[in-house]
Amino acid sequence: MKLLEEKILAEGRAINEDILKVDSFVNHQVEPLLMKEIGEHFAGHFKDRHITKVVTIESSGIAPALMTALALGVPMIILKKEPSKVLNDDLYQTVVTSFTKGTSYELTMSRNFINENDHVLIIDDFLANGEAATGAIRLIRFAHATVAGIGILIEKSFQPGRQKLEEQGFEVYSLARIAGLGKDTIEFIPEE
Amino acid sequence: MKLLEEKILAEGRAINEDILKVDSFVNHQVEPLLMKEIGEHFAGHFKDRHITKVVTIESSGIAPALMTALALGVPMIILKKEPSKVLNDDLYQTVVTSFTKGTSYELTMSRNFINENDHVLIIDDFLANGEAATGAIRLIRFAHATVAGIGILIEKSFQPGRQKLEEQGFEVYSLARIAGLGKDTIEFIPEE
Repeated sequence: MKLLEEKILAEGRAINEDILKVDSFVNHQVEPLLMKEIGEHFAGHFKDRHITKVVTIESSGIAPALMTALALGVPMIILKKEPSKVLNDDLYQTVVTSFTKGTSYELTMSRNFINENDHVLIIDDFLANGEAATGAIRLIRFAHATVAGIGILIEKSFQPGRQKLEEQGFEVYSLARIAGLGKDTIEFIPEE
Repeated sequence: MKLLEEKILAEGRAINEDILKVDSFVNHQVEPLLMKEIGEHFAGHFKDRHITKVVTIESSGIAPALMTALALGVPMIILKKEPSKVLNDDLYQTVVTSFTKGTSYELTMSRNFINENDHVLIIDDFLANGEAATGAIRLIRFAHATVAGIGILIEKSFQPGRQKLEEQGFEVYSLARIAGLGKDTIEFIPEE
């Protein structure tokens, strides 16, 4: 998506070879109009997948997921990150370990909002190693729902997330695919 | 706001005299169209306040804050909750203690996104004791910006948050004001 790539080039900062900061328009300050265009773009791409729910992980995925859900006319569900296992029979829970941050958390989803008839679109801001998306997929499968696709704003294509998800048979659709980060350089994989 | 009160009566659950669960449309599952109407309502109410930024606290405030920011045509800023103080000169930080949950966290805001020329509208999902809003106000004042108003989805009017904020001279505008919660009962303060 040209608009997002241009924004990343204008305002993103490569901190090192692994970390791209986009906190002026995605992670800390958020541009509502950009999120609206992103949401409409995802909705257009996934329009034939009979999506019934959009799922995201708190908290940076919420803005683009909300706009996608609005454009598709379906509810959004926010998966919560809890520091430790909660005793609650109403919840599906799974441990997610972030290699980037070296931390673990319990990803949780209520049993009340997703069931076997749902076709779920997962939306998140970043895809790197794919741990968060894989955790979300586990929760959606606990509910016997169908994962209908995965929409990502910024994919770090030099990390194995996409490959891991594609090997499980999921479509990953990323708006900006980063080939590599260097001091003052951000390189994209060209759009198909 | 009639629409929100009706939704609370239809789907909200009073767990006890203090806790109202609205996780089917605000906190866990989110209804995008309801959030859009809420955002447009807040934007209408605060339209003459020269708002330049909408600020919220992760993560349940993000959806209504995003829609408000979209309707006002300004950026949204998400204040982050960190478990402990971060060593970073680019951040304003302040400790917030939640009486409800008995926990503390560091509320943080980048220095890059708010300055003395900003008129900031704070949007959050709940107002109870006002700790989170008061923390947000401290951060906004560290930046010498102006707090132009506080917009709340659900106010627990039997708790002192509103009074504390009004005593400091802030306008609190709440879409639904809960007078009391009982077993199977939710009572509202009538709209003026």
